[in-house]
Amino acid sequence: MPEIPQKTEYLIGVDLGGTKILAGVFTPDIKCLGKAKVSTKAVRGPDAVVERIIRCVQDAIDECDLDMKQVRGVGVGAPGAVNTDEGRVIFAPNLKWENVALKKALEKELGLPIFVENDCNLCTLGVYETELEGRPRHVLGIFLGTGIGGGLIIDGKLYSGFNRTAGEIGHMVIEVGGAKCECGNRGCFEALAGRAALFKKIQGAVRDGQKTVLTEMLGPSLEDLRSGDLRKAIKRGDKFVEKVVEEAAEYTGIAVANLINILNPEVVVLGGGLIDALEDEMMAIIVETALDYSMAGTTRGIEIRASKLGDDAGITGGAVLARAMTKQ
Amino acid sequence: MPEIPQKTEYLIGVDLGGTKILAGVFTPDIKCLGKAKVSTKAVRGPDAVVERIIRCVQDAIDECDLDMKQVRGVGVGAPGAVNTDEGRVIFAPNLKWENVALKKALEKELGLPIFVENDCNLCTLGVYETELEGRPRHVLGIFLGTGIGGGLIIDGKLYSGFNRTAGEIGHMVIEVGGAKCECGNRGCFEALAGRAALFKKIQGAVRDGQKTVLTEMLGPSLEDLRSGDLRKAIKRGDKFVEKVVEEAAEYTGIAVANLINILNPEVVVLGGGLIDALEDEMMAIIVETALDYSMAGTTRGIEIRASKLGDDAGITGGAVLARAMTKQ
Repeated sequence: MPEIPQKTEYLIGVDLGGTKILAGVFTPDIKCLGKAKVSTKAVRGPDAVVERIIRCVQDAIDECDLDMKQVRGVGVGAPGAVNTDEGRVIFAPNLKWENVALKKALEKELGLPIFVENDCNLCTLGVYETELEGRPRHVLGIFLGTGIGGGLIIDGKLYSGFNRTAGEIGHMVIEVGGAKCECGNRGCFEALAGRAALFKKIQGAVRDGQKTVLTEMLGPSLEDLRSGDLRKAIKRGDKFVEKVVEEAAEYTGIAVANLINILNPEVVVLGGGLIDALEDEMMAIIVETALDYSMAGTTRGIEIRASKLGDDAGITGGAVLARAMTKQ
Repeated sequence: MPEIPQKTEYLIGVDLGGTKILAGVFTPDIKCLGKAKVSTKAVRGPDAVVERIIRCVQDAIDECDLDMKQVRGVGVGAPGAVNTDEGRVIFAPNLKWENVALKKALEKELGLPIFVENDCNLCTLGVYETELEGRPRHVLGIFLGTGIGGGLIIDGKLYSGFNRTAGEIGHMVIEVGGAKCECGNRGCFEALAGRAALFKKIQGAVRDGQKTVLTEMLGPSLEDLRSGDLRKAIKRGDKFVEKVVEEAAEYTGIAVANLINILNPEVVVLGGGLIDALEDEMMAIIVETALDYSMAGTTRGIEIRASKLGDDAGITGGAVLARAMTKQ
């Protein structure tokens, strides 16, 4: 029979994104009991977003028929540079935040210990604790969603660098003069293999007369395009979509090889919405390309794998962080 | 009056390269007293190279009018992956070495404590201890010579990754489909900004009819081309050479930005023969390009600088390592 958790044994993970907030309630052994989601509404400013985080946490607790008093701590992932000691978001471009004392604001309202981390670091931590065996010392997490971000575990600990910005792997230039990136540069990894870049490429090609089953599925403007639609189109034999996805997988493989050459991690784990939806179509190409481009000797015994956590990586990592920081 | 060193206070640093071996004798406060150099002759095999290292060390000691008994330890930098615990070179492509027990072989012959490290790590350590103030926690060393290598200090310690190959930044692809690299891939940083790549580019252009003062200086084949010749040609107003060097500096700046985005070090230090010879021509462009391509917030308070150690970075790092490992 499973042990009945102590009164304050539950953990909450929060993934604060540019468009949505996800909160999950977890047991001490990091099993998810229930979740809640609200839109972020970042345009309303930090105070409003803090209120929405609180509502999302309350919704998740309510969903699980629990009470706030049964929660031990909350780990929050924010999309930007985070001062983890103070729980302060230094800057988060997607939220247009600068210097937001998130820990303080949330602790005041929730009356619970709050711990804030960078979102990709939290995702990596979630994978590290729940999916990887044998406690690898150096792990790199690569998350392909709308954009691309990375998390680093070095010597068993999250690494964030001097300005807490380490892991900005989406803006590693891998094709000088290549596709334009939102950041203003050209040829960034994110501009070649991020979901927004792929969608833009497909929509542009369709405007230029490219035929694809996606327009049959979704109409000519492809406004509601999702990663899963790409998988469906490939399954229906769409060679154009297949090629776009294959190219993205090749670029991702080259990026993985670059990071293996630079950091030589023991495990590289890929996650995020794009990998989640297109694992079967992308992973084999990513691994093959990465091994092809990595220097001799760098890949001996290392593992390149996909995470199964999908959208839950962030909230899982949040729960792991909260558990570690409130260890009794 | 300076303290007179104890009998066994001297330290030796050895830089084992693909073409030459450099040994230097250092005081406990890491001042170089004298050096010796011999060719590596790697084709003769590991045993012959070990003998040549020993001869080089003996020459350096003799040069300083010292005796082997006055030496406390020897730090050796090898161009490859090194198991530092065992002092074993796992593999070193330039030497065609695999699994060479270098520490054991040298200790047997020299009767001194020997410590082996990766060469670029040692260079970074040398710069870290003798040129950087305030003990930065995270430092990246980038060394542009014939090829390009890197060294990483994370949390104040050398970092070498799972297979001891971290820092292979020369094979980070920054231009997919770009110039062919010796490693077999295309568009590696080293193939765009390493000395061998620049020389090849210049020699190719000259064969295709490009005019340059370099042929006046060195004859039409440009066989004995050196980094310093590029500086001289630029000083003499050679726009072609200037452009080649500027392009290399731009590629280097992009590589630096990539590494800042990924690792967010506090200090990035550039060294090696190419930087040594062309610091005035390259550094301003490297810094400007790096700041331009780095993500907002990543470069706040960080420093990008050139090392003054030049060819002595490796032996300096060797002495630093020997001092640290024999601390009394």
